[in-house]
Amino acid sequence: MATAGTSLVFRQLFEKESSTYTYLLADKDTKEAVLIDPVVDTAERDAKLVSELGLKLVYVINTHCHADHITGTGKLKTLVPGCKSVISKASSAKADILLEEGQKVTFGKFSLEVRTTPGHTNGCVTYVLLDESIRMAFTGDTLLVRGCGRTDFQEGNPATLYDSVWGKIFTLPDDTLLFPAHDYKGQTMTTVGEEKRHNPRLTQTKEKFVEIMNNLGLAYPKQIDRAVPANMMCGLQD
Amino acid sequence: MATAGTSLVFRQLFEKESSTYTYLLADKDTKEAVLIDPVVDTAERDAKLVSELGLKLVYVINTHCHADHITGTGKLKTLVPGCKSVISKASSAKADILLEEGQKVTFGKFSLEVRTTPGHTNGCVTYVLLDESIRMAFTGDTLLVRGCGRTDFQEGNPATLYDSVWGKIFTLPDDTLLFPAHDYKGQTMTTVGEEKRHNPRLTQTKEKFVEIMNNLGLAYPKQIDRAVPANMMCGLQD
Ligand SMILES: [Fe+2]
Ligand SMILES: [Fe+2]
Repeated sequence: MATAGTSLVFRQLFEKESSTYTYLLADKDTKEAVLIDPVVDTAERDAKLVSELGLKLVYVINTHCHADHITGTGKLKTLVPGCKSVISKASSAKADILLEEGQKVTFGKFSLEVRTTPGHTNGCVTYVLLDESIRMAFTGDTLLVRGCGRTDFQEGNPATLYDSVWGKIFTLPDDTLLFPAHDYKGQTMTTVGEEKRHNPRLTQTKEKFVEIMNNLGLAYPKQIDRAVPANMMCGLQD
Repeated sequence: MATAGTSLVFRQLFEKESSTYTYLLADKDTKEAVLIDPVVDTAERDAKLVSELGLKLVYVINTHCHADHITGTGKLKTLVPGCKSVISKASSAKADILLEEGQKVTFGKFSLEVRTTPGHTNGCVTYVLLDESIRMAFTGDTLLVRGCGRTDFQEGNPATLYDSVWGKIFTLPDDTLLFPAHDYKGQTMTTVGEEKRHNPRLTQTKEKFVEIMNNLGLAYPKQIDRAVPANMMCGLQD
């Protein structure tokens, strides 16, 4: 969505097998663009959209090392030569650029600021868009719409996730638009204010939250043994 | 999305069985809200969101009489007493309010203007949001992202659809954000400028377009015999 009062181009894209959201952000004036959390199966769709919109893809960014799908990073580096892969240093994954707390990813006149938000994995980060006229953040699997990422594998720790959400995401202004890496119920976005009031897990005490998360009894992720090794290379396997 | 420079609340919602997009629009100040194209299976999710956001649902609006899913209109009228069902007069469906070309649906300080866009069905309309700071339109099945609704049943007529798109949608400014009733590839929105350049069907001549549409060879819609009779009552069957 090209939003009012700003030259930001913004598109949310969905990959239905893993219910993953990919985000395209760009500066309408300079044409510099970034993709957040692309999926290998829809990388061609994303590259085509970048091309049709006349954009120049500079960074392919991941919020963390995904366990449920293979990142589109590697494929996009082939389809769009010159773009660089980006992930957090704490993920221990390989990438062209490794980010730490407070660092920025800049495209045109926009920047995404890194906030480390471990708990789902050690390397999870939230990217906060720095712009005067629109507040938005990309929370990966740390915070989902009325939910959150699981904490029962890949160094998951519920108490750490709770502190990340309350310390790094819920401290943003209430009207900040939040965009998750997944949704399974057709919800596309939320806001800080809404989740502080209506998130059924995160509105609990930390003790209760840990108990809930330790008793979810979820199945082992289908793609994890294939996805994690691939994603640790973050598209540098070629 | 609560968009910058306006008090519009905007949310896109997805129903995955029929790949239908439902839209929630509201005035943040007066709290008046409308839903466009809700689906019966996700009506409870939508009613819950309206309630959590503290909104007052005034209209449940359909772009046309859908053949691929049962509208959530009737269920929402039960879940949220007082809201009114809205559809075009040309749809021949029943509803509390029947709209014609140029009429408006008003919620708070916002209005949706009706543009009749027949071709997929006789009663298809496009709703154009009248706002200074953001241009958007809801095209139903008339225009989809890089595609369009089928024209081989329910009074479908490809030449009529072509004229509707070029006469009523492509005449909007190029930066108008377009939101379709469906997408099957994880695309969530488009713009007038983009579709004028990149829609593989609508960029053809009218003659070529008619030929393409008459040779799609699509399967008979799974839910049509159940959905159309229900949707012709538009939630007034109770
Ligand atoms: Fe994850
Ligand atoms: Fe339809």
